[in-house]
Amino acid sequence: MKVLMFGDVVGDLGRQTLLSYLPELKKMFSPDLIVVNGENAAMSGRGITRAITRELIAAGVDCITLGNHAWAQPEIFDFVEWEEHMIRPANFPPGTPGRGFITIPTSKGKCTIVSLMGRTFLQPLDCPFRTIDAILEQTPPSHYILIDFHAETTSEKQSFAWYVDGRVSAVIGTHTHVQTADERILPKGTGYLTDVGMVGPYDGILGMDKEAVIRRFLTQLPVRFEVAKGRSQLNAVLIEFDPHTKRAKKLKRIRIDEDFPLIS
Amino acid sequence: MKVLMFGDVVGDLGRQTLLSYLPELKKMFSPDLIVVNGENAAMSGRGITRAITRELIAAGVDCITLGNHAWAQPEIFDFVEWEEHMIRPANFPPGTPGRGFITIPTSKGKCTIVSLMGRTFLQPLDCPFRTIDAILEQTPPSHYILIDFHAETTSEKQSFAWYVDGRVSAVIGTHTHVQTADERILPKGTGYLTDVGMVGPYDGILGMDKEAVIRRFLTQLPVRFEVAKGRSQLNAVLIEFDPHTKRAKKLKRIRIDEDFPLIS
Amino acid sequence: MKVLMFGDVVGDLGRQTLLSYLPELKKMFSPDLIVVNGENAAMSGRGITRAITRELIAAGVDCITLGNHAWAQPEIFDFVEWEEHMIRPANFPPGTPGRGFITIPTSKGKCTIVSLMGRTFLQPLDCPFRTIDAILEQTPPSHYILIDFHAETTSEKQSFAWYVDGRVSAVIGTHTHVQTADERILPKGTGYLTDVGMVGPYDGILGMDKEAVIRRFLTQLPVRFEVAKGRSQLNAVLIEFDPHTKRAKKLKRIRIDEDFPLIS
Amino acid sequence: MKVLMFGDVVGDLGRQTLLSYLPELKKMFSPDLIVVNGENAAMSGRGITRAITRELIAAGVDCITLGNHAWAQPEIFDFVEWEEHMIRPANFPPGTPGRGFITIPTSKGKCTIVSLMGRTFLQPLDCPFRTIDAILEQTPPSHYILIDFHAETTSEKQSFAWYVDGRVSAVIGTHTHVQTADERILPKGTGYLTDVGMVGPYDGILGMDKEAVIRRFLTQLPVRFEVAKGRSQLNAVLIEFDPHTKRAKKLKRIRIDEDFPLIS
Ligand SMILES: [Fe+2]
Ligand SMILES: [Fe+2]
Ligand SMILES: [Fe+2]
Ligand SMILES: [Fe+2]
Ligand SMILES: [Fe+2]
Ligand SMILES: [Fe+2]
Ligand SMILES: [Fe+2]
Ligand SMILES: [Fe+2]
Repeated sequence: MKVLMFGDVVGDLGRQTLLSYLPELKKMFSPDLIVVNGENAAMSGRGITRAITRELIAAGVDCITLGNHAWAQPEIFDFVEWEEHMIRPANFPPGTPGRGFITIPTSKGKCTIVSLMGRTFLQPLDCPFRTIDAILEQTPPSHYILIDFHAETTSEKQSFAWYVDGRVSAVIGTHTHVQTADERILPKGTGYLTDVGMVGPYDGILGMDKEAVIRRFLTQLPVRFEVAKGRSQLNAVLIEFDPHTKRAKKLKRIRIDEDFPLIS
Repeated sequence: MKVLMFGDVVGDLGRQTLLSYLPELKKMFSPDLIVVNGENAAMSGRGITRAITRELIAAGVDCITLGNHAWAQPEIFDFVEWEEHMIRPANFPPGTPGRGFITIPTSKGKCTIVSLMGRTFLQPLDCPFRTIDAILEQTPPSHYILIDFHAETTSEKQSFAWYVDGRVSAVIGTHTHVQTADERILPKGTGYLTDVGMVGPYDGILGMDKEAVIRRFLTQLPVRFEVAKGRSQLNAVLIEFDPHTKRAKKLKRIRIDEDFPLIS
Repeated sequence: MKVLMFGDVVGDLGRQTLLSYLPELKKMFSPDLIVVNGENAAMSGRGITRAITRELIAAGVDCITLGNHAWAQPEIFDFVEWEEHMIRPANFPPGTPGRGFITIPTSKGKCTIVSLMGRTFLQPLDCPFRTIDAILEQTPPSHYILIDFHAETTSEKQSFAWYVDGRVSAVIGTHTHVQTADERILPKGTGYLTDVGMVGPYDGILGMDKEAVIRRFLTQLPVRFEVAKGRSQLNAVLIEFDPHTKRAKKLKRIRIDEDFPLIS
Repeated sequence: MKVLMFGDVVGDLGRQTLLSYLPELKKMFSPDLIVVNGENAAMSGRGITRAITRELIAAGVDCITLGNHAWAQPEIFDFVEWEEHMIRPANFPPGTPGRGFITIPTSKGKCTIVSLMGRTFLQPLDCPFRTIDAILEQTPPSHYILIDFHAETTSEKQSFAWYVDGRVSAVIGTHTHVQTADERILPKGTGYLTDVGMVGPYDGILGMDKEAVIRRFLTQLPVRFEVAKGRSQLNAVLIEFDPHTKRAKKLKRIRIDEDFPLIS
């Protein structure tokens, strides 16, 4: 069972980059499931629209996860509830539109995908540790379980992964937009990567136009950010699960940009 | 000109790990300069002592950089001022003991090493952008310039690197304790890596005992942290500078642990 | 029904000041219930000990509330569980030692006192809004209900008060150590004061030695804080509840210091 | 020498309330100088426009101070530079449009008014302590000096006031929108009030529509805030300075709302 997961897709350039590489990556890796964090997929780099959601799904994405920017496009409230391939962080308060986890059938078995957000330097959502306990209680042990843990700090991400080690198939971090080089399988079998990294502009700052972001740091004045233009990058991870134990066997990081071109 | 740089060394296990691999790594890479972030090198994982400082320097470390934990061991105030191989973040207020940058002679030329801290989710130090401008004004163009940018967010780290692109040899991030996989040379020649990662326990959380850190997330009660025991990891980066342009030619990430053993 | 409530009592000087004025204030106001926030009552100004707890209760305090410093003295874990006159914030996670609310009988009827903490710029506890809903569901309408809302921002304090307006007798803020001048009765009958203010040193910074606190702002270095010495201040509020409606009839702020001496 | 100072004026209702009470207050108190914090005076409650600035000045306001919302209305950049009666926080980086302090002549002598922002839980501006030192160095001792210290925490506000005690006439806090009851004259003569409080809606949350603010706390979703409607409140402080020492002689808090009507 192989899952191909992409981190935060940023803006038009991110979406185009993802769509243009997807066929090749599918051919190379034959994933059974494709997961994409879509919280920055809208043209402005904030939130996601229904049209983009549909486009990603039509291209073969099985599940779109979200994060702190989930609600940036007001139209999200019109479709998040019934969009079967989309999840938002499960630890938003009860009553939040949409679902925090979904189960998707694959030819290798069912996979439950969970979206969760950390709280350090982010909003005070419900405790992600207690939320995952509650979700796992209602998830059959026969399922693969993949978690997109969207958080700021390495501390909270590592803590969460160790907390669920042996109880889920993998914890893959998102939100920082930078891929980390610490892929591993924890002692009880859970695959882990602190951050899978982004898909989008290669010469921006987290995908946004760098002049504007630098200006804000320098002046401390409000500055309007736009998605950067130019070259692009794609970051992803291929996770292989053992069909018997439902735990991780292997994680392979993928980085594609002008410095690390795709060699197929 | 080659610099071997190690990120935050955590506790006894970190120091021992560093010292035990150093001879082999020197043999493999023949670095002209060795830089280590020592802000967590004390036994408790917070701060650094004079004895550890001396031990690292005796083992061949040319420069010890610091960060937000610089002042955790009170004795730092007794030796930071006259310790020639140690720098603390340059953007602490004027009057702070110690130096923010030093110049070290090597057989390939002089290298100025600068320690700076980001401010997002950290203390309100002086602006690191304006501080580097002032430092660069007084640094001859014939120097190599290496910056340890100790910061929490990927956004501030990338912004800083783009800001100084073409004006320094390399910007290497520290503080998150997790190595990132985004090494690159920016368009105007500055080498960049968001975080070089830590040296110390492999089965802890940023090097600290994982049960304690998880307990704090779960209970929100004060919990005393200790450095984790057991297996170790080492993360580093080898940066090669062009002796003519003083800009970066190549960055090679180094990761050594049980999953990625050193093959010499 | 009259409640006399004191905000954060800081250090020895705070305790002594409280104890020395209490007889006079009791004579002046004949309160049916006395509530004190004790999170800073220990000698260091952080946490509270069993001996101090007992001393306050012996002096006539009916209920000691706590806040973010609740757990600073390790011995709290030895007595918070069985100490009947003490409550800690109710929105700590399930399983936290101690209680979040208690009901105290008075000659005018039963009064339920609730301790809650805000989350803005504080730890990510459970949602205080949902927590109070759950507590109110199990509290008979015949009780007076007084809430110590321990929070940093005026925004969260006002939001909470408006949220429970008409459902509780009063919301009194603590934590900022400065009394606010906005006492009022909200349209549906809930008495409200953003912060009742502290009891302790008059010439400190929130009760701590001012030279040390200023030095930390100036240097950004770690500085050890001690409780300030010298003159003292006492801040409190007298709240009068209607015995029929159980809602607030009147709030009277009390400020005693050398500039505003007690005139009995 | 008497100064009448108003805290953050919020929205249309704030402006109207201020303008309608101003004649009466002038008659009652005969202030020599009128200062208003205008950072929320725009219709949306964020920033200020040129038209509102002119209207306030025409009504007799001598100086408009600003804060973290200074730049919310883009047109501010068109007039802040040449508007002689307006100051923005002096500790924004060098090069920021506008001035951080101005000197205004009165019949009782010259008064220098300074705007500064705290940094705790706010942006990392330049150090306000070092900034005021630099400003005081260039201010003749014959001037009265009034500081609007716009900050979140009571700790930073008190620290700042003690830091300048004896060197300025008064430090008056703004930003929390709630008046504090701790007016005093520090030992060396500086008048101090942690926060003067707001002018605007009485039944909002910091002046904004309460349903919206509460909804954001409950749902953690983005919610659009509007200025509240209905009843209004006015908070201010009258500070009297000694013409010989230039230090404070008396502070009188002013609170006007339906619960505390103006009795002239
Ligand atoms: Fe993102
Ligand atoms: Fe995010
Ligand atoms: Fe560190
Ligand atoms: Fe650090
Ligand atoms: Fe307190
Ligand atoms: Fe507190
Ligand atoms: Fe403000
Ligand atoms: Fe304001």
